[in-house]
Amino acid sequence: MNVDIGNALGDVAEPGIDEAALEPLDGQVRAAHDRITAGMENEEFGYAALNLPERTEPATIRDGVAGLENSEAVLTVGIGGSALGAGTVSRALGPSSVDHYLLDNVDPARTTQVLERLPLEATAVNVVSRSGTTAETLANFLVVREAMNEVGVDWTERTIVTTGDSGPLRALADRNGVPVLAAPEGVPGRFSALSAVGLVPAAVQGHDIEAVLDGGTTAARSLAPSLQNCPAYAYGAVAYALDQRGATINVIMPYAEALEPFAEWFAQLWAESLGKDGHGQTPARALGATDQHSQLQLYRGGPRDKLVTLVRAGTREDRTIPETDIETLSYLGGTGLGEVLDAEFEATEASLAEAGRPNVRIEIDRLDAHGIGELLYTMEAACILAGELYGVETFTQPAVEWGKRAARGLLGGGDFEEAQAVADKRRYLVESTPDR
Amino acid sequence: MNVDIGNALGDVAEPGIDEAALEPLDGQVRAAHDRITAGMENEEFGYAALNLPERTEPATIRDGVAGLENSEAVLTVGIGGSALGAGTVSRALGPSSVDHYLLDNVDPARTTQVLERLPLEATAVNVVSRSGTTAETLANFLVVREAMNEVGVDWTERTIVTTGDSGPLRALADRNGVPVLAAPEGVPGRFSALSAVGLVPAAVQGHDIEAVLDGGTTAARSLAPSLQNCPAYAYGAVAYALDQRGATINVIMPYAEALEPFAEWFAQLWAESLGKDGHGQTPARALGATDQHSQLQLYRGGPRDKLVTLVRAGTREDRTIPETDIETLSYLGGTGLGEVLDAEFEATEASLAEAGRPNVRIEIDRLDAHGIGELLYTMEAACILAGELYGVETFTQPAVEWGKRAARGLLGGGDFEEAQAVADKRRYLVESTPDR
Repeated sequence: MNVDIGNALGDVAEPGIDEAALEPLDGQVRAAHDRITAGMENEEFGYAALNLPERTEPATIRDGVAGLENSEAVLTVGIGGSALGAGTVSRALGPSSVDHYLLDNVDPARTTQVLERLPLEATAVNVVSRSGTTAETLANFLVVREAMNEVGVDWTERTIVTTGDSGPLRALADRNGVPVLAAPEGVPGRFSALSAVGLVPAAVQGHDIEAVLDGGTTAARSLAPSLQNCPAYAYGAVAYALDQRGATINVIMPYAEALEPFAEWFAQLWAESLGKDGHGQTPARALGATDQHSQLQLYRGGPRDKLVTLVRAGTREDRTIPETDIETLSYLGGTGLGEVLDAEFEATEASLAEAGRPNVRIEIDRLDAHGIGELLYTMEAACILAGELYGVETFTQPAVEWGKRAARGLLGGGDFEEAQAVADKRRYLVESTPDR
Repeated sequence: MNVDIGNALGDVAEPGIDEAALEPLDGQVRAAHDRITAGMENEEFGYAALNLPERTEPATIRDGVAGLENSEAVLTVGIGGSALGAGTVSRALGPSSVDHYLLDNVDPARTTQVLERLPLEATAVNVVSRSGTTAETLANFLVVREAMNEVGVDWTERTIVTTGDSGPLRALADRNGVPVLAAPEGVPGRFSALSAVGLVPAAVQGHDIEAVLDGGTTAARSLAPSLQNCPAYAYGAVAYALDQRGATINVIMPYAEALEPFAEWFAQLWAESLGKDGHGQTPARALGATDQHSQLQLYRGGPRDKLVTLVRAGTREDRTIPETDIETLSYLGGTGLGEVLDAEFEATEASLAEAGRPNVRIEIDRLDAHGIGELLYTMEAACILAGELYGVETFTQPAVEWGKRAARGLLGGGDFEEAQAVADKRRYLVESTPDR
């Protein structure tokens, strides 16, 4: 894979990074790489994520799902880092005869709809929660388990759990003889895609999870103490430096429908890791070419506050557009849909550059198991590098605790003073009072 | 419906709007309302959108789809404003026995996957392009038509076209006796959800499109010359005023899976309408409660550059969570998934306020046909109001033309100098060179 930072340089874009600024930036990268390498060697909290491609044992995952290989569908019950990696990997690997469903929200309409669609007697239920106490995940799991009971399916035969060493979910699984895989120790959820947390659905689907890990290993071996020859660090350093210069928004825009969940995964990685102490670039998810017809006007004509990160695969299967006598469209006939997509990618990239808007191109060789593993690892390393440059605690998420306590208090799960703040809300209501 | 701007006021949030600033802001609203009302009365370009609920004839749409009512699926082929409204309305109206598919990208893998899933002999194909020349849409349509031919389906019997008064798509449909509905005159695509452009799939699905338009009419009747009693203007004015005070990002965060496409629709509306002349708040799509586990850390702990727009329905069907003996989770048993979702909504709102981050609550009575019509119209009116306050040309999108010419040049569709800029790209390649 490669990263092209040409359109982020000062002679193209404003904000942009002058070439003279690259050397001091590279000095920061060198120091950060030393810190990262030490963290990896000592399996420190968070840094340990970068060892996952070598640490994760695909055979253990395959053993775990061995009783579920006859499934017609796999249902992941998880939220945040316990769902986004699995969704990203499975979708990137392409269609399978085993559909992957996700319950990653507590929306009753959605849960009911999914349960109505699923063949419960042939569904593998993949429950993921590191702590084993995540309210949304456990609530959905209780509902799913009840639905299985109601149709006479033994949930213990059709469930696999990924969780930490202890906690109520581990206890429940052990009590019922349900296979349990370990959420990797020392790795926050959002950095755990290249472990059981991200790979179970793909394994049930029969995808090549070994190749995903190989892709991660390839990226791990390309870590080097300079942004000049390390794509991950080049991206992380450039995103950081552009943020410092005013690009406070990072638009993540893959040109492949199968990478749409990747944009969501990246958005969590970037937001939750770097968004603290008043720092952090705000990720905005987009999709090429679709969002050219939605967001591009703003990206070219709006404020100069964005880096646009364009992601694509170098090669793919194409599909030919038939010849046509429709006036003005004959030029499309005989080309491929993928050729059109590529032309739009390059045209958008050039159109941003022409308007002086910084953008970076990230290209993987091919959107396959190896490619997605390489991409995920590269972005994780980029994020950790950026965290070093910002000087934040990359691996924590302290700001979400307040709301969790408030919600728990509201639901009668204990006496939390945060719940009182909800009742004290400052109201200023503007109502619609039409003559209906 | 109602809009609560309490948490956007200066005594709660920074940036925030001091109460003393509301009166001068309301003066701007009054002037803008006069301009908007005049534009509506004269059916001026763009402003005409606000007349759609009364102008659109549901009977004409029902007549257009009359031959397609036996369909098992409906496939919309369109992009941007020709797809997002239809996707939003259909999804919001809930599951149907007729699934709605979208081809809104030129990704060969996606097009192939959709064609493999669809029962082509029982699919209604809904082709939407105002100009009739949109490359992505026509390319997909040509591929779909060929696929239908290959399995012996007469595409002219299973297609409906929505387009402008003239153009190649209109000519093709007329030549083949395919029913054509009119894309409403004087209304840009992103403002045309409450017309055939947004309602055809819902009509094929048997949904109550009259009620969607009724909801729009309700919102239209609540337009009033003050933000104090007009939810649409209250939202538009507050979003604008917060942007002026530093909230350059507008996070649109509905708490309902069925409103996920609504967030995409809103993102186009806001970005393409307001993102010009260096102005424009950047929409960032989120989804509650899911993104509490992904973006909330950044929203609370990151830079003070965001307005968070929380959207929910006041009432809904719920689904009970079974009682459980899982330790620490007994408080969930017997409550509903929807109750958990509501508690998380209120907890998140309070947690943003506690951290002084501005947020606005938009609430519709119920997520049904009337509710989605009211919501879409309200946001359109909010956007037009904001456009008046920014002083931009709300209804144009000039910045996207450059890239369209470049892409067309690259594809051999003519001699465009923009294509040359693609070849001249500034490159600065960082490659991964591991020892694989």
